Amino acid sequence: MPDLSDEGLEEIDRDECLRLLAGRGVGRVAVTIGAVPAVFPVNYGMLDDAVVFRTGAGTKLDAAVRHAVVAFEVDEIDTLYHEGWSVLVVGRAAEITDHPSLENAELLPLRPWAGGERAHFVAVRAEIVTGRRIVPHD
Amino acid sequence: MPDLSDEGLEEIDRDECLRLLAGRGVGRVAVTIGAVPAVFPVNYGMLDDAVVFRTGAGTKLDAAVRHAVVAFEVDEIDTLYHEGWSVLVVGRAAEITDHPSLENAELLPLRPWAGGERAHFVAVRAEIVTGRRIVPHD
Repeated sequence: MPDLSDEGLEEIDRDECLRLLAGRGVGRVAVTIGAVPAVFPVNYGMLDDAVVFRTGAGTKLDAAVRHAVVAFEVDEIDTLYHEGWSVLVVGRAAEITDHPSLENAELLPLRPWAGGERAHFVAVRAEIVTGRRIVPHD
Repeated sequence: MPDLSDEGLEEIDRDECLRLLAGRGVGRVAVTIGAVPAVFPVNYGMLDDAVVFRTGAGTKLDAAVRHAVVAFEVDEIDTLYHEGWSVLVVGRAAEITDHPSLENAELLPLRPWAGGERAHFVAVRAEIVTGRRIVPHD
């Protein structure tokens, strides 16, 4: 996939991307609200190849992800040594309502940080997974 | 702006958002490539009320931001104490080509981390700036 090999960035394969995703807990969801793009940080977990996070009913995030194609990004950036990686998941978001997926989602360490009920579990199936690693040029 | 006051999240006003933006160095740019959303981490600086980062000619990011409305997000998340904040800038991206803006951009601490020329400076004017702080519920 040469379209990913921007100069100085090294492609990360899907298996390694999924391993990196499993090792982090906070990512950013990018959605479109009206015609305006927006990004929200969320804590997340993985269920098989899907990114799972919670939303609250009536929130902007909840509305935006319903049946939308969303981008979910996780990274680890070392600002001192200028190293790091970034993994991007693109897929359709859907609320988890079926059993046993709902029970499995409830077992994820996704206690809401903020107050308020965040009763919905949203899954973004990793239909497209790409990753890039910063290769320092010094 | 009650549409921002999702439960458990406290709105941050524009001045404080700009102060928070000035205090960080890595953010995420959300763009649409074709019909597919994507998010890229970038190091950035502020010129007045504009977010400035570098792109390389011919990269996906460079193409995506040209005359596009993009979202730029910066956050600071404490995964131990479940505290943090997130600031979202939405605005039209434009390459900086005029003087003295170009000279000012070159003074920003935006040395490219990865190899490769990243000769273009892109400015996203902070037309819409919103911020939210996580208020722990314990």
